Amino acid sequence: MKRSSLAPDTYEKLEPIEDVRLAVCEAGIRYQGRKDLLLCVFPQHTTVAGVFTKSRTASAPVEISRKHLQGEKARALVVNAGNANAFTGMRGMDAVQKTIAATTSLVGCPPEEVFVASTGVIGEPLQPEKFTHLLSDLHQNLKVDTWHEAAQAIMTTDTYPKLAHHTVKMDAHKVRINGIAKGSGMIAPDMATMLSFIFTDAPIAANVLQPLCEAATAQSFNAITVDGDTSTSDTVLVFATGGATKHGVKEITALDDPRAQDFAGALNTVMRDLAHQIVRDGEGATKFIAIHVSGAENDKAARTIGLSIANSPLVKTAFAGEDPNWGRIVMAVGKSGEAADRDKLSIRFGEHLVATQGEVHPEYEEAQGAAYMKNQDLDIFIDVGVGTGKFTVWTCDLTHDYISINADYRS
Amino acid sequence: MKRSSLAPDTYEKLEPIEDVRLAVCEAGIRYQGRKDLLLCVFPQHTTVAGVFTKSRTASAPVEISRKHLQGEKARALVVNAGNANAFTGMRGMDAVQKTIAATTSLVGCPPEEVFVASTGVIGEPLQPEKFTHLLSDLHQNLKVDTWHEAAQAIMTTDTYPKLAHHTVKMDAHKVRINGIAKGSGMIAPDMATMLSFIFTDAPIAANVLQPLCEAATAQSFNAITVDGDTSTSDTVLVFATGGATKHGVKEITALDDPRAQDFAGALNTVMRDLAHQIVRDGEGATKFIAIHVSGAENDKAARTIGLSIANSPLVKTAFAGEDPNWGRIVMAVGKSGEAADRDKLSIRFGEHLVATQGEVHPEYEEAQGAAYMKNQDLDIFIDVGVGTGKFTVWTCDLTHDYISINADYRS
Repeated sequence: MKRSSLAPDTYEKLEPIEDVRLAVCEAGIRYQGRKDLLLCVFPQHTTVAGVFTKSRTASAPVEISRKHLQGEKARALVVNAGNANAFTGMRGMDAVQKTIAATTSLVGCPPEEVFVASTGVIGEPLQPEKFTHLLSDLHQNLKVDTWHEAAQAIMTTDTYPKLAHHTVKMDAHKVRINGIAKGSGMIAPDMATMLSFIFTDAPIAANVLQPLCEAATAQSFNAITVDGDTSTSDTVLVFATGGATKHGVKEITALDDPRAQDFAGALNTVMRDLAHQIVRDGEGATKFIAIHVSGAENDKAARTIGLSIANSPLVKTAFAGEDPNWGRIVMAVGKSGEAADRDKLSIRFGEHLVATQGEVHPEYEEAQGAAYMKNQDLDIFIDVGVGTGKFTVWTCDLTHDYISINADYRS
Repeated sequence: MKRSSLAPDTYEKLEPIEDVRLAVCEAGIRYQGRKDLLLCVFPQHTTVAGVFTKSRTASAPVEISRKHLQGEKARALVVNAGNANAFTGMRGMDAVQKTIAATTSLVGCPPEEVFVASTGVIGEPLQPEKFTHLLSDLHQNLKVDTWHEAAQAIMTTDTYPKLAHHTVKMDAHKVRINGIAKGSGMIAPDMATMLSFIFTDAPIAANVLQPLCEAATAQSFNAITVDGDTSTSDTVLVFATGGATKHGVKEITALDDPRAQDFAGALNTVMRDLAHQIVRDGEGATKFIAIHVSGAENDKAARTIGLSIANSPLVKTAFAGEDPNWGRIVMAVGKSGEAADRDKLSIRFGEHLVATQGEVHPEYEEAQGAAYMKNQDLDIFIDVGVGTGKFTVWTCDLTHDYISINADYRS
C-alpha cells in the first residue's frame, strides 16, 4: 500500500507512561508478515472512559466494551486487526468471551476490567484459537516503549501509524498523554472505522474522565469525515492509570477542578492531532481540507452544513481536480436542510473572498481560486448568514485511488 | 462524452400529443454545436402540477416556477441547459423575468402561465440577451414531433437523451403520456440535478394532477440516487392539455374517479422509466442496482435504510469492483440510524441467500456472490427484521469515471 501523500515526514517518539505496558505480535489473523495483535496492561485503579459507534449493527467487541465501561475500571486492552468480528452472530460473542477469559487469567482481574476492539473485514467469523494462545507470550513481553509498534499493530488500510502525545503540568509534576489511532476508510462522524486509545498517568476519576472524553471526541473524531461511512466497530477509550499520584499529584475528582480543564486542553490537542492524521490517511487523499462554517442557526446546524459539504462527492471530486467550484459548495449548503440565507451567503477560499451576498464577488477572479486550490492544505470558510453557530469539519478529497482501494480491498 | 455502458440500445419514438408543440435551437449559452434551448407551448386550459427541489439554496427559475404553480395553468415552458441560473443574486431573478416577458409577448398569456427551468453550472450569471431574441424564431417553428430533440436540448453531462411514454384507455379514447428527463450527476432524492417534463392530452383538473404527480415522484425520481447530492434546480412538471376532450373524454375532477387511478398507473410507469434511465446514465455507472429493503419499522424507515446503502461510497465501490462485500451493506444498515435487528438481518443477492439471522448463511459460498456480481443489473434484498415497512431504491456504482467526470467538469 502506497503511503498517503499527506503522511507526516517523521514520527514523534512517544515517551513511556509509567505503568502502561504494551506488547504486539503477528497472529496472522488476516494479514501475513505484519503485527496484528496488541495487548495493553494497566495497573490496578486505572480508570477508563469511552465513546463508541452509534451504528445499529455494532460489533460484538463494541457491545462488550460498552458494557464493561459501566464498571469504570480497566486492567487490560486487547485489539486485533484484520477481522472486525462484526455481524458474526453468536460466534462473534463467543470469540470475545474467549479472548477475555484468556486475558483475565494472565492479568488476574475480573472480566469486566478487560476491554476489546477489533477492526477489519465484517461478516467473517473471528477464530479466537488463532490468537488467544499468543496472549501469554505477549503478557511476558510487555514493555513501556512499544508505542510505535502498537500503533502499527492496529492498522488495516492505514498507510502509516498514527501517534500523538502531550504533557500537562499538574501539581508540579509533568503528566503525560499518549495516544494511538487507526482509520482510513469508512471514516465519518460517529467515528466510522476508527479506533483510538489514549493513555495517561494523570489520576482522574472515571466520572470526570468520561465527559472530558466525550467533549474531546465531539471536536475531533466526530468532526472528521473521509467518505461519510460509519463503522460497526468505532471505539475511543481513554485509560488513566493514576501513576502520577506517586509523584504527589492528587486525584481529580470534579469537573470544576482547574486541573481538569488543563487536562481537557491537552486531551483535545492529542485527539485532534490523531483525528487529523486519520484524515490525512484518508483513502486516496491528496488534499487536507478544513471546512469552517459560521453564521448558522446554532453550532449543531453548522456541523450539519459542514458535513454536508465535506461528504458531497461533487465537492470532494472538485477538490481532487483543484477546481475552485464554489457552486458545488452552495449546492451542498442547500441540501443540508439547515437554515441558510441564499442572498447573504459568503464563501472564502483561504484569503480569497469568492462570493458575498449570494453571488460571486465582483473582484473575485477564477485564477485566484484556481491558484489557491493547488495548495495541499485548504481552508474553506462559509458563512450562511442566519445566526452565530459555527463548527469546523476536516475532510479530504475523493480521488481515483479511493476507488482503486475500495473496489478490490476484500477480494 | 462516452455513452454510458448502461444506455438503452434504441430509443422509442414518441407519438405527438395533440396541442403540445415544441421547438429547440442552439443558443450557445455554454455549449457550442448542440441544442440547449427548449420552448414548449400549450393550448389554453392546460393544467399543471409540479414538484421542486427541497434545497435551501434553490435557483431563481425554481422560485418562480414554484410560485406560478399556484395558478394551476400553463401556456409555455422555457428550458435552457448549460447554466443553472442558481446563486446568481438579483441578476438571476432579472434573467428569469426577461425570459418570461419575451415568452408572454409571443404566446399571449399572463406571466404566471410561463414556466422556466435551467440546468448547468451554478454561480455564473445567466445572460438573457444570449437567448431571449431566439424565442421568437422558436415560436414560429413549433412542431408536435420534436420529442427526441427536446430531450437532447435539456441535457448537460447526460450521455443520452431520456424519453418515455405510455397510453391509457379513457372513455374509449387512448390518452397519451409523453415524458422527457435529464440528469446524470448530482442525482439524489429530492431529485437532485434532474429535470423532467411530462405531457398528456388527458383532461385533468390541477387539484387532481398535483397529488398524482407527487405520489409518482415519490416512487420514482425521489427513489433514485447516483451520488447523494441534491441540486438547486430540480424540477418535475406535468402538463395536461385536455386535448382529449375533443374525443369525448370528460375532465377528471376528483381523485376517486376510477380513471384517475388508471392515469396514475400510467404516470408512475412513465416516471419510473425516466428515473431508471437517469440512474443508468449515472456518471461513470457500470451497474444498475435495485436495493429492496423490507422488514423495516415503516416504509419511511425502509427508504432511509435503502438510501444509506445506495449512497455509501464503500458499497458503491464494492459493486464497481464486482465484490460481493455484504459486510459493507451491514455497515450501511447500521449507520442509517433506523431500527434494525442485527441478529435477524438477512441479505440476498438475487436468488442467493447470503446472510440470515445476523451471520453468513451456512450454505452461502463466496463464489456464488462473485458470479452474481458480474451481472450488469443487480437486485439486492435486505430484510432488517423489525417490522413490515418496505421500499425500493435504485442506484448505480461508483467508478473511476465518476471521478474523472467530476474532477474536471467545470474547469
